[in-house]
Amino acid sequence: MKWSLHTPEGTADILCQEALLRRRTEETIAGVFGGYGYRGVETPIFEFYDVFANNAGTIAQESMFKFFDEQGRILVLRPDLTTPIARLAATKLKGEKPPYRLSYCGNAFRNERETGGAKLREFTQSGIELIGADHPLSDAEVITATVECLLAAGLENFQIDIGQVAFFKGLAAQLGLDAEQTEQLREMVDRKNSLAIEELVALCDADDALKALVVSLPSRFGGMEVVDGIDESLLGDTARSALDNLRQVYSIIRDYGMESYVSIDLGMVQSLNYYTGIIFKGFTHGVGYPVCGGGRYDTLLAEFDAPLSATGVAIGIDRVVSALMWQKKEVAVQPEITLIACDNDDRAAAYVYARTLREEGKTVQMWLDEGSRDDVKNFAKEAGIARVIWVTADGAQELD
Amino acid sequence: MKWSLHTPEGTADILCQEALLRRRTEETIAGVFGGYGYRGVETPIFEFYDVFANNAGTIAQESMFKFFDEQGRILVLRPDLTTPIARLAATKLKGEKPPYRLSYCGNAFRNERETGGAKLREFTQSGIELIGADHPLSDAEVITATVECLLAAGLENFQIDIGQVAFFKGLAAQLGLDAEQTEQLREMVDRKNSLAIEELVALCDADDALKALVVSLPSRFGGMEVVDGIDESLLGDTARSALDNLRQVYSIIRDYGMESYVSIDLGMVQSLNYYTGIIFKGFTHGVGYPVCGGGRYDTLLAEFDAPLSATGVAIGIDRVVSALMWQKKEVAVQPEITLIACDNDDRAAAYVYARTLREEGKTVQMWLDEGSRDDVKNFAKEAGIARVIWVTADGAQELD
Repeated sequence: MKWSLHTPEGTADILCQEALLRRRTEETIAGVFGGYGYRGVETPIFEFYDVFANNAGTIAQESMFKFFDEQGRILVLRPDLTTPIARLAATKLKGEKPPYRLSYCGNAFRNERETGGAKLREFTQSGIELIGADHPLSDAEVITATVECLLAAGLENFQIDIGQVAFFKGLAAQLGLDAEQTEQLREMVDRKNSLAIEELVALCDADDALKALVVSLPSRFGGMEVVDGIDESLLGDTARSALDNLRQVYSIIRDYGMESYVSIDLGMVQSLNYYTGIIFKGFTHGVGYPVCGGGRYDTLLAEFDAPLSATGVAIGIDRVVSALMWQKKEVAVQPEITLIACDNDDRAAAYVYARTLREEGKTVQMWLDEGSRDDVKNFAKEAGIARVIWVTADGAQELD
Repeated sequence: MKWSLHTPEGTADILCQEALLRRRTEETIAGVFGGYGYRGVETPIFEFYDVFANNAGTIAQESMFKFFDEQGRILVLRPDLTTPIARLAATKLKGEKPPYRLSYCGNAFRNERETGGAKLREFTQSGIELIGADHPLSDAEVITATVECLLAAGLENFQIDIGQVAFFKGLAAQLGLDAEQTEQLREMVDRKNSLAIEELVALCDADDALKALVVSLPSRFGGMEVVDGIDESLLGDTARSALDNLRQVYSIIRDYGMESYVSIDLGMVQSLNYYTGIIFKGFTHGVGYPVCGGGRYDTLLAEFDAPLSATGVAIGIDRVVSALMWQKKEVAVQPEITLIACDNDDRAAAYVYARTLREEGKTVQMWLDEGSRDDVKNFAKEAGIARVIWVTADGAQELD
């Protein structure tokens, strides 16, 4: 095998058609975020490992691509973009009045085995971070902007599921579970394993109604009735205020007329260590993974010495583009090409003619050879170019 | 030192203002390339080392950031984009009729010591590769498109210097120099060290007029007279046809009305092992390095089993943006923000109002808090937002 002809596992060349659709998708999403007042920033592709080291277990050390600088410090290809942007906000925006609305589009890298063949080790994320704002309006803004992005990108039939990790954490604390048991319960809820949940909560010293509520978490999915159907007298302060927060965020989204795109899912409980409140994921037809994910992470900024609350979303460009291609909604069409040819003496006229067409937005190639009108017609035929114009100092003539 | 607060040497965070100017510059350049019929492609950020290993000495092994995949193969952060695109064209475009016009915009990485503080280890390049075309029209197209890019980006007073490495190689062969001596001579010409050149050629068994021509190379700079002033009877086949090629390319650029942006420089002789014909570099005020560079590389594709001629250019986005900021030509201005606030009961109306403004292209932030009109006015004042609109179900009112 000649390795120099191949791309590494989990990476890919992106050819013209797909690259065009990607660029359009990225620009569309950047446009929506820009309209909301988010300002684009960029951070390095690699960072000191320390930036991600305290990242509370979200991204395992072995999932990062690591290398050394000449002083022996560990560098990593960034495994996500939220953490570097938190670092940037904490260090470079000091003194500006929050909230900071920041957007980005860039690649991230994870050294993970492919599961099912679809996992990319290099992937592109477009997202926003809303830093220094903790009102439910902030979470609602991020989710609403996400819905608008997916709509503008051309996705059909997508859905955003919203959970609240503090609600789950509160219930686990009420059951008297320690950290390890809480993680076990989280895994069971995440896998919708009700039988295992029943066995676990049976061992707890707690109200039966509370236990039943916990067992029911994986099936608590739908609209506002999911929240309203819970007997709040069972809840401690943490769970009650988390539920109230979820209700408020959902209400705002409903006020914004977006409720048809959104569902509540109390069984959504991944990443307890990173997220601190609202979490959400978006799904659509044609890709087996979420096309976006986000939530509130009120503790991350403190790791960079700037204790600010924060919420955000990352949209997976690769997945959105896969879904668009699967849904055949908006496979970008390469622009039609006009081929221009001329005799050597008429190059000046041909260039002016080509430039004029380009200024009108047309895509114009010059014939990179010398020859007769028949020669250029033959070339165009082989190259699949329909429109050929022969330019002389006296004018332009379309060849057919 | 808390490493987690810093970016690695030679990398940088790019904040809002500069990020906006970068994005505009990238889009402008992509627009010009698109108009010429170049199609965007993307390649991975890291590749197998083998892709670059045969790259004939252009990029030293120690200049690449290296790490291993789990099977022990060496991966590198791509040190340039031309080589991966050559690989892509050779492997993925087989069967399409050349020429291939491909464009890209992405980051490349070199682990080099900073010289003078300006050298970035991560840098962004926007460029084109024109593969499978060897007529002088091809080189002229690449240079012309480059000039149009720099003009469209807003640069003032830039200049493209054009050389021809085959001309130099031909002369060195006529002097009877071996590879090592040729490299010595190349370095002397590159450093414009005429004294050293004189000493070297004095040892050669060749015509005095030929020796004088070689000594004069560093000062042969200007317009067509540089080419026309050379006595062709001194030249062997290689040098003569290289000079003729340079004359043709320059003539086409002149036909295109671009000669004021272009100079001929017969003393430009870097990278003999990579480039095979025309080479060029662009310079402007405000940056100490070339803002772009390119040329013909007819041997690279053969390393990927597809012997095709090729020519291209890479424009350094970081340098163009630095120059724009230094020339104060087009420091991008963040859009003016409209802040929208409302009572809780009027959120639906406020959202509709915000969306309408956004659809008109305005940048609209929602106030992420609750309170009175005075509260939002105070917030806007502190945040430096001039325009605040209070929305009720009955209408919108600008607060002042």
